[in-house]
Amino acid sequence: MANNQEIQLVKRPETTPTDEHLKIIDTTMPKPGDGEVLIKTLYVSVDPYMRGRMSSAKSYVEPFALKEAISGGVVGQVIESESEKFQAGDFVSGTLPWARFSTAPENSIRKIDPSLGSLTASLGVLGMPGLTAYFGLIDIGQPKQGETVVVSAAAGAVGSLVVQIAKLYGAYVVGIAGTDKKTAFLIEQLGADKAINYKTENVGNALQTACPNGIDVYFDNVGGTVSDAVYPLLNDHARIPQCGSIATYNDPNAQGPRLQMHIVKARALIKGFIVSDYQAQFKEGLTKLSNWYKNGQLTYRETVREGFEHIPDAFFGLFEGENIGKQLVKTADPEE
Amino acid sequence: MANNQEIQLVKRPETTPTDEHLKIIDTTMPKPGDGEVLIKTLYVSVDPYMRGRMSSAKSYVEPFALKEAISGGVVGQVIESESEKFQAGDFVSGTLPWARFSTAPENSIRKIDPSLGSLTASLGVLGMPGLTAYFGLIDIGQPKQGETVVVSAAAGAVGSLVVQIAKLYGAYVVGIAGTDKKTAFLIEQLGADKAINYKTENVGNALQTACPNGIDVYFDNVGGTVSDAVYPLLNDHARIPQCGSIATYNDPNAQGPRLQMHIVKARALIKGFIVSDYQAQFKEGLTKLSNWYKNGQLTYRETVREGFEHIPDAFFGLFEGENIGKQLVKTADPEE
Repeated sequence: MANNQEIQLVKRPETTPTDEHLKIIDTTMPKPGDGEVLIKTLYVSVDPYMRGRMSSAKSYVEPFALKEAISGGVVGQVIESESEKFQAGDFVSGTLPWARFSTAPENSIRKIDPSLGSLTASLGVLGMPGLTAYFGLIDIGQPKQGETVVVSAAAGAVGSLVVQIAKLYGAYVVGIAGTDKKTAFLIEQLGADKAINYKTENVGNALQTACPNGIDVYFDNVGGTVSDAVYPLLNDHARIPQCGSIATYNDPNAQGPRLQMHIVKARALIKGFIVSDYQAQFKEGLTKLSNWYKNGQLTYRETVREGFEHIPDAFFGLFEGENIGKQLVKTADPEE
Repeated sequence: MANNQEIQLVKRPETTPTDEHLKIIDTTMPKPGDGEVLIKTLYVSVDPYMRGRMSSAKSYVEPFALKEAISGGVVGQVIESESEKFQAGDFVSGTLPWARFSTAPENSIRKIDPSLGSLTASLGVLGMPGLTAYFGLIDIGQPKQGETVVVSAAAGAVGSLVVQIAKLYGAYVVGIAGTDKKTAFLIEQLGADKAINYKTENVGNALQTACPNGIDVYFDNVGGTVSDAVYPLLNDHARIPQCGSIATYNDPNAQGPRLQMHIVKARALIKGFIVSDYQAQFKEGLTKLSNWYKNGQLTYRETVREGFEHIPDAFFGLFEGENIGKQLVKTADPEE
């Protein structure tokens, strides 16, 4: 009996993912086994890194299997429990399938403490994006008081937190984003010192004006032409946390200027990372983030789309730069 | 009276430097002032990094001034001394002009101890190239026993030392160079495990065969298409000391595949550096290098051209890959 649905990867995208790659499939309601719970999905997180898992190429996470449900960050509610650790009604988060209902072993999910923030904070400021922003900026970027920090995709889930954390560390912060609404958000809500719209401005010229003292830290989420404009302005011993490369995910053969000469000239450091590299320090990071969050020092924005069937569109929209802050899909209301 | 000659930068090269940019100019014999010595130039070092100083762009060293002598690593002999630290006949090295004769303040030059090695070792294994190889590989590359280290421009002044130091640290070493004579040198003289001729082989395929366990360290001197072939094979947490980028020095607008996706996937570290970043540790490095050298653990090769007037050609030849090991020009015999 088809009383559940999931979203499967049915074909690997070569370039831009579309409806032909992701399909909604009718399935049956799963039954929790011993030590498991049945979860009703409430919110699904769609993230740029998931594009990488849709390719078959080796990467830091396993590729998604074909004809299986995509999995990612989910907030849900326990509706049936065969575990002593959870009871019906509990809110939980974890890496779960894009399905209306799913089961999970008790050790693979975390209970959400609603007193810590909103239900979805665990998918944003107090979850993967928050930890990514914090460790990438602090461990690799190491911004110092008065240094210039440039952030690409600055209005996104990670970037919007990087901008604010850099400000908390006393840096001069320049954010780059793709709409005037986003650049206004950077200045007015996040406290960025300058914001650049890369779709309407010449980024090289705008950066030169916005960064009279050069660039000390470049938190890079995009890796395309925006980054090309940053490299010539790097100061000696600049640091580049390479968080993502969304500009090239759908076009792996993209060409651009070679960057090695700038790296040598500035004696720059570039370091790719993923949040799980810092697993051993998650507790420290979450404490920092939740303190800032509770003190109102971190503004947190979400773009929420409604409806399970719109998960694919919300994911595709990431590559069009549609979202401000974290892109979520609300798939159901909690049970009373 | 024109009894001296120097080589001046008379025009800044936009792309490949040629005879129109460097001119031999007749000058007069300089007189040493108080605390200075008069030096007869015996050997001149020509190095790829000097290309950067011929441009007017900001870099880690000041651009060469137009209509002044180029300066670089020189070994010479004191022929007249107004310093208590030196006497006529002493062999010295330092950063000196490309001139047949020059003066230098006593604190700007070092006496060469001929018991430590050949006269010219101070321009190679016991000088800038040796220290560059040592600190770039050890501090940034951090090769571990059994790891795979790939070296570009592996038969050059720096690369040939990197290959050997990596072997001393127990790594599996693959060298890339541009002639069969050089690849034979890498295997037979330097002990590389594999060598690839990038001019006759498909570097990507050859690397895949030569590096069955992927690539952990890439000591990069070139930064062009050779590097493009390395990035897709990087292992998790790979380290890339970015020593130079000779493939692009004469073509700053060169385009190539974007590398950020590989950096993210492998969570790689890239760090540009110059040897003077390690000035505080030079003594430690020189001790290591001279011990290996004296114990016969470092083979050291020079390509020596004869004649002051051939300095420009020897420099131009670097970009054609003519040299094996350190490229020097012998400009005069020592005094009896």
